[in-house]
Amino acid sequence: MKLISYTFNNTPSFGAQKGDGVIDLGRRLGDRYPDLKSLVAAGLQEAEEIVATADIDLALDDVQLLPVIPNPGTIWCAGMNTHSHYEEAKDHMHLKEKPQKPVLFLRSPATLVASGEDLEKPQLEPVFDYEGEIALVIGKRGRNIKVEDALDYVAGYTPFNDASARMYQISSNQITAGKNAHRSGGFGPALVTSDEVDLDTMTLECRLNGEVMQTMPLDDLIFSFAELVSYISEFAWLEPGDVIVTGAAEGVGALRDPMVILKAGDTVEVEVSGVGTLVNGVADQPAV
Amino acid sequence: MKLISYTFNNTPSFGAQKGDGVIDLGRRLGDRYPDLKSLVAAGLQEAEEIVATADIDLALDDVQLLPVIPNPGTIWCAGMNTHSHYEEAKDHMHLKEKPQKPVLFLRSPATLVASGEDLEKPQLEPVFDYEGEIALVIGKRGRNIKVEDALDYVAGYTPFNDASARMYQISSNQITAGKNAHRSGGFGPALVTSDEVDLDTMTLECRLNGEVMQTMPLDDLIFSFAELVSYISEFAWLEPGDVIVTGAAEGVGALRDPMVILKAGDTVEVEVSGVGTLVNGVADQPAV
Repeated sequence: MKLISYTFNNTPSFGAQKGDGVIDLGRRLGDRYPDLKSLVAAGLQEAEEIVATADIDLALDDVQLLPVIPNPGTIWCAGMNTHSHYEEAKDHMHLKEKPQKPVLFLRSPATLVASGEDLEKPQLEPVFDYEGEIALVIGKRGRNIKVEDALDYVAGYTPFNDASARMYQISSNQITAGKNAHRSGGFGPALVTSDEVDLDTMTLECRLNGEVMQTMPLDDLIFSFAELVSYISEFAWLEPGDVIVTGAAEGVGALRDPMVILKAGDTVEVEVSGVGTLVNGVADQPAV
Repeated sequence: MKLISYTFNNTPSFGAQKGDGVIDLGRRLGDRYPDLKSLVAAGLQEAEEIVATADIDLALDDVQLLPVIPNPGTIWCAGMNTHSHYEEAKDHMHLKEKPQKPVLFLRSPATLVASGEDLEKPQLEPVFDYEGEIALVIGKRGRNIKVEDALDYVAGYTPFNDASARMYQISSNQITAGKNAHRSGGFGPALVTSDEVDLDTMTLECRLNGEVMQTMPLDDLIFSFAELVSYISEFAWLEPGDVIVTGAAEGVGALRDPMVILKAGDTVEVEVSGVGTLVNGVADQPAV
């Protein structure tokens, strides 16, 4: 299934995308599953049965997409998690060796925007940047998960733009500030459930105004999806609705020569093969 | 006011502590303010009026405390934010200069425990540690907040134990993993509203099994409460219910000689003068 969260007539709901149409699952299941987060925790089977036979309720063009999980739990992000990004960054960042363990930071759920919405450059940030990534949404609670079992805990996959305020990112030795600017996390458009995804062929492409800036096959990852799930579960419970953002490939704007900086009016697309394309414009922070 | 969140007869509520008693504000105001977070956003004046005249509803001993804001927004934490902790850590951590900007990381709300509950050492963690700190709870939405206005955005103050899994903390150049172990954030017992707090005399003391391990006057902070609020608001909106955990003083266990490591059965107290004392036991991770 290709699952989305949206508002229609100002009412939040969630559903399954079928071509250009939407099957409204919130209307059918909302008494037991108030949102897509609760559906991925326990209701995917029921949703499958509905989607197999139901008629289209809405045109996709008529709904307003929300971040695909509007109310996620913890958003774990892996930094410096591709071989290619390590190679482009190591001299600039004085890195002595590839990460021996996943490099983790958190993103606040308050930073998320939907596909179709603008990312927002903070007023004082000179170097606002894109990072196309693949996000996993957890569907099952787990702790001390073995690598070989880890993908069983993933409900599905969706594109993510880990847009970064580079001045704030390097303002201290912790990158969190630069990864948590208001409206800097593009998340969606749709969650494609694990059963419909082929990890053997999945690739990621990030485009700025139509030009390809980043390309990532999954073997570029230093720590695989399964290794990230397993590692985090050593010290934390993973819960349905938690998100793992898995890392960006080479080609970020700040490390290009000449540097490429996002500006108002730009469009960034993050396409995950077989999953979908996240599209976000860029806007300046409005005056407060 | 001294505000708490709690369950009574398995029903969550919130109230004002008066001596050994509790005035149940959830029962009186819950139709408009479902939790303490929404009360600090808009209902403190109404609560004041009730507390001035209401009789005690419950004995404090009869309620089960929750983390003081059980459902916070973003929890911003300042690392390396005291002169004394910088001095004890700089050689060990190869730091060349004091932070020029606040060193920020996030804590997931999923890590919180109440006063009276145990902190939990992850199974594989050899060096579990305490960090006594002062937390601010934001009461008013704001962006690009000036330092001189910043404390107007703080609803109140409460103790925080930023318990740290040191192996995970130093497993990469980002400390987030070690700051987000399950049940590692002690938060409470009570939020004391800003009008009742004297920042000129506030001090912090952290005790392990009764022995004083950390003492912090507020002038030990590198970035003041107001500077932290102002800085974060440059790139993010601060929202009611967001939390800023402001940093620990010298005396952490991992940098002592000999090292002091938390173990099951220990008790850690974090006392903020005029605000209250957070008490947490320590337990091992139960078998999964």
